[in-house]
Amino acid sequence: MSDELSETLEALGREGPAGNRPKRMAMVCWSSDLDRVWPVLILATTAAASGLEVNVFFTFWGLRVLQKNDKRVTGQNWMQIGESLMDRGGTDHLRLGKMHMGGMGTAMIKKLAKQYKVASPSDLLEMAKDLGVKLYPCQMTMELYGLTKDDFIDGLEPSMGAASFIEMACESDITLFI
Amino acid sequence: MSDELSETLEALGREGPAGNRPKRMAMVCWSSDLDRVWPVLILATTAAASGLEVNVFFTFWGLRVLQKNDKRVTGQNWMQIGESLMDRGGTDHLRLGKMHMGGMGTAMIKKLAKQYKVASPSDLLEMAKDLGVKLYPCQMTMELYGLTKDDFIDGLEPSMGAASFIEMACESDITLFI
Amino acid sequence: MSDELSETLEALGREGPAGNRPKRMAMVCWSSDLDRVWPVLILATTAAASGLEVNVFFTFWGLRVLQKNDKRVTGQNWMQIGESLMDRGGTDHLRLGKMHMGGMGTAMIKKLAKQYKVASPSDLLEMAKDLGVKLYPCQMTMELYGLTKDDFIDGLEPSMGAASFIEMACESDITLFI
Repeated sequence: MSDELSETLEALGREGPAGNRPKRMAMVCWSSDLDRVWPVLILATTAAASGLEVNVFFTFWGLRVLQKNDKRVTGQNWMQIGESLMDRGGTDHLRLGKMHMGGMGTAMIKKLAKQYKVASPSDLLEMAKDLGVKLYPCQMTMELYGLTKDDFIDGLEPSMGAASFIEMACESDITLFI
Repeated sequence: MSDELSETLEALGREGPAGNRPKRMAMVCWSSDLDRVWPVLILATTAAASGLEVNVFFTFWGLRVLQKNDKRVTGQNWMQIGESLMDRGGTDHLRLGKMHMGGMGTAMIKKLAKQYKVASPSDLLEMAKDLGVKLYPCQMTMELYGLTKDDFIDGLEPSMGAASFIEMACESDITLFI
Repeated sequence: MSDELSETLEALGREGPAGNRPKRMAMVCWSSDLDRVWPVLILATTAAASGLEVNVFFTFWGLRVLQKNDKRVTGQNWMQIGESLMDRGGTDHLRLGKMHMGGMGTAMIKKLAKQYKVASPSDLLEMAKDLGVKLYPCQMTMELYGLTKDDFIDGLEPSMGAASFIEMACESDITLFI
């Protein structure tokens, strides 16, 4: 390849032209509602299975998704502890954002999902890790909630901030806020 | 064009450089709330009118948007039937996700929209089809809800799964989850 | 550079290859919920501080974010006035979309944010303007709400419609609907 051509290609992006690297998806998982976490995890695992590099940034309510299922109380002060009691973390405890109906709606949709062989959020999270999806806890939200590395499931990437997410999103073909 | 140049261009992406094809938008319509469906349909029709290729994937609550307005009850088992009764489908029956206030808020905003000549979701959906916007029902959600092709309005694309959406989104200039 | 190469580069996009211009982000701020406005403003300021060109389109409920904090009543007719009373605008008056709990939850998270030095939405909005983030009110929503330029804070871009947003989003590396 001529020098001129190489320079041209280099000019097309920091990492070379999109055609020379795998496609990428960057998602923000902002919510801990079952009906939002489900699409996050379905899209993440599907994309990874299709060969994409997938980065998911768990922030605000969404950070609770990464919490261990058996961690009931988290936080360092009364406000953080109070919040943790009302917003239970872990993929086994997610509730529908709409039509939860005191648990009935959530139980019903979980039952339907099982019947139609849609994987549960807990299974999808494991699959995501197996498929190489990168899961990043938001550093700022960890501080707000008083959460530490010990409160989270294994296999996560180091926590990061919004600037790192922006950098990843800049080099991604698909960017979604869910 | 020299061979080297052709190869360079080919390397830039499966479908050639973005400059050689129309711009594209891929959206997930996840919600059936009036205040979310409205932006989906406004952005879809506006983009199509501006010359973009537009693909919209209707999934989770959003699948109900494609339901015929006169289909009151859908589903094959009691859970699906129950869900259909509480979450009425069709663009004529959407409710605000916030400030619905027993119907008063929703009625008010519809009245304001009419007064200021903002097209209704039902009109926008027709316009979208006329403008060539492609509307895809989510196969998995159809199974969950027990919905069949007969429950939907005419003029839709065949149902598809998340993998097909990911593929479309990869080749799109705008990707949004609404 | 040879003519052929220049033409090739030109063919890659209306504005030349992405590598020759700063990265860009286009966001829709659709909500006036504190827990959604916060990510909008954190992502906008962080991206601008990282050198990106950032455009934010404030539409539907999100338009209220740009309202002056001391404007209590807005609108030209009783429906618009009524809506303004129930959905108070201005960054000082945002409420959590979840766990607001009559104000207690919102007050608590604001207190935590202060303790952990997370900037308030009002401070972030000022920072955004200082960093050159472009803030666009949605023309259609202004009409629906009966809002005028006088109801908004200073330093905004002229109001625009969905078509202008689509055009900006087409040339952006990150597109998000929040």
